Amino acid sequence: LISIVPVEGLPAIRAGDDLGALIAAAAELRDGDVLVVAQKAVSKAEGRVVRMDEIVPGEEALRLAGDRDLRQTQAILDESVRIVRERDGFLIAETRHGFVCGSAGVDASNAPEAGMLVLLPLDPDASAERIRRSLGARVGVIVSDSFGRPWRLGTTDVAIGVAGLRPLLDLEGRRDPTGYELHSTLIAVADEIAGAAELAMRKLAQVPAAIVRGLDFGGEGNARELIMPRQRDLFR
Amino acid sequence: LISIVPVEGLPAIRAGDDLGALIAAAAELRDGDVLVVAQKAVSKAEGRVVRMDEIVPGEEALRLAGDRDLRQTQAILDESVRIVRERDGFLIAETRHGFVCGSAGVDASNAPEAGMLVLLPLDPDASAERIRRSLGARVGVIVSDSFGRPWRLGTTDVAIGVAGLRPLLDLEGRRDPTGYELHSTLIAVADEIAGAAELAMRKLAQVPAAIVRGLDFGGEGNARELIMPRQRDLFR
Repeated sequence: LISIVPVEGLPAIRAGDDLGALIAAAAELRDGDVLVVAQKAVSKAEGRVVRMDEIVPGEEALRLAGDRDLRQTQAILDESVRIVRERDGFLIAETRHGFVCGSAGVDASNAPEAGMLVLLPLDPDASAERIRRSLGARVGVIVSDSFGRPWRLGTTDVAIGVAGLRPLLDLEGRRDPTGYELHSTLIAVADEIAGAAELAMRKLAQVPAAIVRGLDFGGEGNARELIMPRQRDLFR
Repeated sequence: LISIVPVEGLPAIRAGDDLGALIAAAAELRDGDVLVVAQKAVSKAEGRVVRMDEIVPGEEALRLAGDRDLRQTQAILDESVRIVRERDGFLIAETRHGFVCGSAGVDASNAPEAGMLVLLPLDPDASAERIRRSLGARVGVIVSDSFGRPWRLGTTDVAIGVAGLRPLLDLEGRRDPTGYELHSTLIAVADEIAGAAELAMRKLAQVPAAIVRGLDFGGEGNARELIMPRQRDLFR
């Protein structure tokens, strides 16, 4: 049995907050739990926000923004190493971390104040590790964000930061009941855990974390392992 | 609290089996549960398998197969309306249903016998509805399959068939705590539920179903809603 428990009663997160300590005070974590924390809360605690009125849009922003806000487009470009697709001002970008997502993860919703944009953490794996250390219990930590996908509508939450958990489960070489050897069976369990936690979070009610209990994925790993190596990527 | 309960003790699934009745006998379903059933089990119950030695590869298979099995490549082409990407015999295809996935969902693992390939159900939404009707309880049903994603390693389970459940949660127009109106916030909850259930399934131990309990997504819907409309698709 696996259970997903929302972490309720957290205060509004401010820059400088020790998110791990706040969560440890609000929730009863047990060894073996996986704690999933929404990126927005992590970014706010780390002060990864920009004021829109401090952004000066450049030429590329002018060219790409369409009907959208020029300064927000500039913020997206600042967070990106490459624009993968664009249409009518909507940008799908590769971030400095190597994630490909809408708007390079830059978002105006749930910002600390109106007129602010929230950016992805500089190093989400380090964020996960930092949270993990201040929790006290032997848990895995995932920093999650909502990503869109080609060909399918809607977002699902995925892992952009991981600590204390192997993000991929490799069934390679194991055999099914008929003796057929499974190959290329690599399961992105960290992404499935992030999505499961999302089901228990309430984006509108300041529940930015959930505990997934009863899993059996220990070990060590990070979210960089989830990025498709360039040479295997058919969609660059 | 959300819980994920594997459905254990199911027999090996054979063509003609009433999968809903088998699951209802093995598990205690409650009103409001979402039952997730792995596509492989659904396809086997529906007899959606082909014997490799009955497949005659054509010219396109010869051209595309690379080092891979010619007859399996032909089976993939038979299930596809369009090849989206190909490299060294690995095909990413659009299926007749409109799903884009590796090998058009054709798979040799967990087949009823060696030398057989399992195909996706002809109409997975109808499969989900059929299972739902034979369960007795007022539950949602998802038929799940493991899909790869561009840019990210590993598969996550997604919903290819849905009944008794709205697959998308639309937060459009709702406001965050600072008053910012959320737009384009569409969450693919059916895919997150499918992924959550995968965490409790054991691909190698004949546990092809899991119950997700404690969700609050009722209504009606189908998995076709999860397919990105062609005119919005930046990755055709």
